[in-house]
This record gives sequence, C-alpha cells and structure tokens, in this order.
Amino acid sequence: MGARQLMRNLSQDKKGVILLSGGLDSVTTLYLAKDQGYKLSALIFYYGQRHKKEINCAIKIAELNGIDYRLIRLSIPWVESSLTKKNISVPLNRYTNSKELPSTYVSGRNIIFLSYAASLAESINARYIFIGAHTEDYSGYPDCRKEFLEGMEKAINLGISKKIKILYPLINKSKKEIVALGKKLDVPFEYTWSCYLGGKRPCKKCDSCRFRIRAFEELGLVDPLL
Amino acid sequence: MGARQLMRNLSQDKKGVILLSGGLDSVTTLYLAKDQGYKLSALIFYYGQRHKKEINCAIKIAELNGIDYRLIRLSIPWVESSLTKKNISVPLNRYTNSKELPSTYVSGRNIIFLSYAASLAESINARYIFIGAHTEDYSGYPDCRKEFLEGMEKAINLGISKKIKILYPLINKSKKEIVALGKKLDVPFEYTWSCYLGGKRPCKKCDSCRFRIRAFEELGLVDPLL
Repeated sequence: MGARQLMRNLSQDKKGVILLSGGLDSVTTLYLAKDQGYKLSALIFYYGQRHKKEINCAIKIAELNGIDYRLIRLSIPWVESSLTKKNISVPLNRYTNSKELPSTYVSGRNIIFLSYAASLAESINARYIFIGAHTEDYSGYPDCRKEFLEGMEKAINLGISKKIKILYPLINKSKKEIVALGKKLDVPFEYTWSCYLGGKRPCKKCDSCRFRIRAFEELGLVDPLL
Repeated sequence: MGARQLMRNLSQDKKGVILLSGGLDSVTTLYLAKDQGYKLSALIFYYGQRHKKEINCAIKIAELNGIDYRLIRLSIPWVESSLTKKNISVPLNRYTNSKELPSTYVSGRNIIFLSYAASLAESINARYIFIGAHTEDYSGYPDCRKEFLEGMEKAINLGISKKIKILYPLINKSKKEIVALGKKLDVPFEYTWSCYLGGKRPCKKCDSCRFRIRAFEELGLVDPLL
C-alpha cells in the first residue's frame, strides 16, 4: 500500500457523522472527537423545538471548527411534547427522580436522528456516528440508553451495505463530568444552549437549566450564559 | 373490565401504522391488514423519488379505504441514487441476479421510514407497524431483509416507551404471489404504481416494471396500467 493510499485509509478510518444539537453534550462530544483526530460531518435537526436557539449554537460550533454541516427539517406533527407544542407546559422545578416520562420526551427522536445519520454515513463513507447521549441525567428518555444505542447499531448494520459504529463517549458521565471535560477541551460554552424554553436568557428552572447550573456550580465555574 | 373498556382494548390491539408507498407491495399489505381487521394510519413519504406518481396512488388508496394518512417530506440530499438524482440513470434490462447493489438503492430508506413509524405508533398508541418488504425480488436492498426488520423492531422497542411489533406479511412471497393475493383481496391495481421512471406510462424496462409485468403474465392477468 502506497503512502497516499495509506493516508486515505487512515483518514477514512477517522471519518464520522455527529448529531449536533448545540447543547452541552453534543458540543462536548464534538470537541472530544476532534481532539481524538476524527474528521466530522455534522447533522443538525429542526424538529419544531421551542429552543431553536440551540440550532444557532450548533451552526456556530460547526463553523468555528470548520466542520461541514447539514440542517434537516423534520416533520413529526403527531408528537405531543412540551418541547414542540406551545399548549403543553415545560415542567419547571420538577422532582427529577420521577419514574414517569417527562412531557419534554419527543417520541422517536434519537431513532430518527440516528437513521438519518446512518444514511449520511453510508453515503459519505463514514465509519462512525457520534451521539452525545448519556444516562445519569437523561430524564428517563428511553432513546438515550446504552441498550438502545447498541440495538440501533445492530439494526443499522443490517440495514445498510457498510459497517458503522455508533460512539457515545459521554454515556456514563454525569453533567458535572461533561462540563469538566468540556472545560479541559476548551469548549466555548457561550455557544452551547441548554434551556428548554429558548428565551433570551436561560430560565434556570427547567430540568435542562437545573442540571447545567448545578454542574457549573459544583465545579466552581462560571456559565457564560448566566 | 366493562364492555366499553373491552371494546377499546380490542380496537387498540388492532391499531397499526402502515408504510404506504403506493406500489403493489405496500398496497397489497394494506388490503391484507384491513382484511384481517386492523385499523390503520398511513405514512407516505416524498424523498425526491422520480416516480412521485406513486404518491398520488398512495393517497388515492388511503382515501378509497377511509384511512387517515400523513405525507412526509424527507430531505436526504446526500443520497446518490438513480431514484433521486436525475444525472444517474435507472438501470434498464439489467441482469437482476447481480450481487451488486443497484443504483436504485436509497441508503437508509427503510431505516428512516420505520423510525418515523415508531414515533407515530407510540404517539397514537398503535401496536403494529406494517411494511410491504419482501426478499425474493428485493434487488439486493439490505433494508428489505427479515434480519434487518427483526433488528429494527428490537431497536425501536428499546428506544420508545411502549411495545410495538413490525409486521411484514409479504416477506417470503414472490411478486407473482403478491399479485395473486392482491387479486384475491380486490386490490384496485389501477391505483398502484411500480415504474421507477415515473413517466406517463410504465417504461416496461426497469427492474420494477419487469417484475410486475412477469407476475401479471404468469397469472394470466391484465395489468390495468398497460
């Protein structure tokens, strides 16, 4: 194998698609993957979420890192989630250890995101799909669990003609550990958005704000958004 | 359990989402499911396919059967398929036992379709997803294989909060058997579209036309489209 071919193979080996929401988790995943030498293409989704501010963050992060991105509009009007329906309230100050699925659950979200990522990965010869899912603070979403991600990887590999691997490096990390990792990797936190409400400033009361605030506080860091 | 509750449970038991392309296979699957007492909601996708005539057929079939349907526009611009890119030719008169994936392959198509169906099924409390996939004439598409459908069902059940079953009653049938079944079920074949080219009349040369023509001929039936 010549040097050119070797280089091409090596670079193909490190080619990945990343699901980039613009939140803390996906952005930290991006900086981690970049740090590990992966060459990424980003998928950004607008599915009617209230907090579409996160999309601006995702685009900014992609641009800052010179990463090509695709913005996909999803139509899932049947989903009755407080993230997508204005007439359903986002829960504030809720008891977060509840076993019930919160109203912020968007049915099938990561299943749909990963299926698009599979199509893109096969089409551009990428071997990896990165997703920032993690379980500790996952609010009970079934499509953030390791078992689901493993199952989805199997299904995808049966449904396309190439082999891909889904990587979820944050899966066992707490929000505190994710912020600490982000800090180490110089993640520009000012271009990450977490608040479900998507107002001008974070509401500080939704689950997503509360996990973020606690993580920064525990680390003695200042969140540039506050 | 009162009679009303029992009726509700029974009717929920038979609630299904069907992937309806407007082709022979999905339409026959619909008539079969209806014959078996399922109450269906249809998902119809426009993903940039040349043969968008099939969408008119799908809508007509849904309307004829009083079935609610949702038409979803998918954006998968990265897919290099002759079904979606005008600059790639649809293969005509090809040797159909080729092991190579034909240019009509649309990467991730059924993965994406089924992920939307999972989201819809969970949202409307449907327990079944119907897909008209079958293997004999499947042109080598990996996402039409039983193994994939089984894997996808597992992944979906890990990724949503309810249990669903993917039903693919045509999986082992030949095109001839599907047309025979359609005939028995009074499928209005004039409202099914198969030709990949999507012209005014079927081209009679693409894989999809050839399988259809042979099936009707072998059964001594007249295809109303010809």
